[in-house]
Amino acid sequence: MEGRPLNEDALIAWLRERTADTGGRLIGDDAAILPRSERWAVTMDSQIEGVHFLNGLDPEIIARRLLAVNLSDLAAMGALPSFAFLALSAPQGFDHQRFFNALVDACETCKLELAGGDLSRQPQVAAVMTLLGAKPNGQRWLRRDTARVGESIWLGGTVGEAAAGLQLLRRGANLEGGFLNVSENMRIPDSLISPATLAIRRHLEPQPQLKLGAWLGTCPVATAIDISDSLALDLHRLCRLSDVGARIHLDRLPLPIHLERLADIAEVKWQDLALKGGEDYVLLFTLPRGIVPPEQFACTQIGSVIEDGVFVVGNDSEELLPADGWDHLSD
Amino acid sequence: MEGRPLNEDALIAWLRERTADTGGRLIGDDAAILPRSERWAVTMDSQIEGVHFLNGLDPEIIARRLLAVNLSDLAAMGALPSFAFLALSAPQGFDHQRFFNALVDACETCKLELAGGDLSRQPQVAAVMTLLGAKPNGQRWLRRDTARVGESIWLGGTVGEAAAGLQLLRRGANLEGGFLNVSENMRIPDSLISPATLAIRRHLEPQPQLKLGAWLGTCPVATAIDISDSLALDLHRLCRLSDVGARIHLDRLPLPIHLERLADIAEVKWQDLALKGGEDYVLLFTLPRGIVPPEQFACTQIGSVIEDGVFVVGNDSEELLPADGWDHLSD
Repeated sequence: MEGRPLNEDALIAWLRERTADTGGRLIGDDAAILPRSERWAVTMDSQIEGVHFLNGLDPEIIARRLLAVNLSDLAAMGALPSFAFLALSAPQGFDHQRFFNALVDACETCKLELAGGDLSRQPQVAAVMTLLGAKPNGQRWLRRDTARVGESIWLGGTVGEAAAGLQLLRRGANLEGGFLNVSENMRIPDSLISPATLAIRRHLEPQPQLKLGAWLGTCPVATAIDISDSLALDLHRLCRLSDVGARIHLDRLPLPIHLERLADIAEVKWQDLALKGGEDYVLLFTLPRGIVPPEQFACTQIGSVIEDGVFVVGNDSEELLPADGWDHLSD
Repeated sequence: MEGRPLNEDALIAWLRERTADTGGRLIGDDAAILPRSERWAVTMDSQIEGVHFLNGLDPEIIARRLLAVNLSDLAAMGALPSFAFLALSAPQGFDHQRFFNALVDACETCKLELAGGDLSRQPQVAAVMTLLGAKPNGQRWLRRDTARVGESIWLGGTVGEAAAGLQLLRRGANLEGGFLNVSENMRIPDSLISPATLAIRRHLEPQPQLKLGAWLGTCPVATAIDISDSLALDLHRLCRLSDVGARIHLDRLPLPIHLERLADIAEVKWQDLALKGGEDYVLLFTLPRGIVPPEQFACTQIGSVIEDGVFVVGNDSEELLPADGWDHLSD
């Protein structure tokens, strides 16, 4: 395969194979569980200006977003946040203290210690975080590869909202001091101002589901992944790693209010936002039939684990769900 | 201090203060020792195209260089390499498989497991690595802040060579298939071809001193830092953190062969290469007088720990040594 360009999942599969004797077994879940003591899960995620967020984002928001996407990986493992390491590259003029003040505050909120890292300069902001999460006493680690035929498939929150927010930002909307501003050629009716504001905020500052992850870790059987790249793509990953299929129902998907109308403004289909949008950072998980998450987590059952194939059931038809979403190595 | 730009050390000092209650105690050594079990040291270092190495470097060399600078931090802690995590951002066309083949081979050599990471796209190559190192049984962690007055100051290898190599590259020299090529307006006499080749290789692929670090970890008393930014700057750091001073002797510095003549070609002073050059990735350490490292490590005693001030003794004079070197936040 030498030299042929691969997409992200194919590259990771190749790398697992290439390192089968020396660590490959650790690659491919939301975080790696360190062998021997099995006490620590380690995750690493990047936020790069112009790639993961639009240029010129407030350093405070970059800091909270970076932390959130990493915490979401720990949530998907059922881990307790413990230590954070940061590599921050930023251009001349970047307000490091504004960034760190926000980061340290956010770390304190979730009892995470900022323990080290690395600073350098580069033309655009690139922030990489490594988190160590501990396994709570008496709990299991959550994995992506343990789903079984017959289990129910659940979502920990709505999908499509972060992608709607990103589309609005790309079309010239922005939040200033928390208030929505839109460009001249964009009309947002009064009734959509609040949903549009929430959508943009959801994109900028996702809320990792640590408590839901911790609850799932107390279940004798549960399988989980966080939706970073898209419902479709992350569902395909969970199925491939568990060697199962899935059937989900379009009309059961939990959607934010007015998603369809926000999609109209952004000139995209709401189904694409919900299925292929990504960055919602809610947990996608499976549980044996009959086990229902506590009401406080507001989870929704969206389908079932089947033997083979990933299908989405619409109004009149059932179709194969393509593995579409965010590929970090696509153009 | 809000908003005022700080240099790297000042920013880290501010951040230690800002996080004093929640982890600040972990920031500032080569790696962070995780509290409670004290079993793991964690380090994180970046390699960015155009910042840490010149544009267009072979992905294989980037991979080995990234690993080496991180391993050097573990060496300075006396840690045993255990797990590696990688965040790699690269432009379209980057040969990921070439990078990973080299990285995995290098990890195998030092018994390191590549355990996870993150891939994304950005215009220049930026690679960030997090390493977890374990404390060997019965050993101590090496720290930067334990040097005491009267101890001897040692270097684990020569200084100035990596900086000479970088200067040669900047002036148009390069290695192709391991052989030295020079630009038209650069003349390198035959007798300097081998030293110039070694200098460039030293810059591109530094050799972390893991065995020396492990030996120091067996000493009842030892203090160490790795020279990444420069002998002067890293000596100042060790002194500031230990609350001591230092006197080193210019004529005792271990220098690579022909450094003075390489410096002439690069139109810099050899003293600047040795004292302020950086990236030599040898250990700078202190030991109680009378303890001498085993001969196999080829260490050199360069001075003594004193109460206050950092001085360099030349032929006829003693001068204050400025804390000059690589500041990752300077321009």
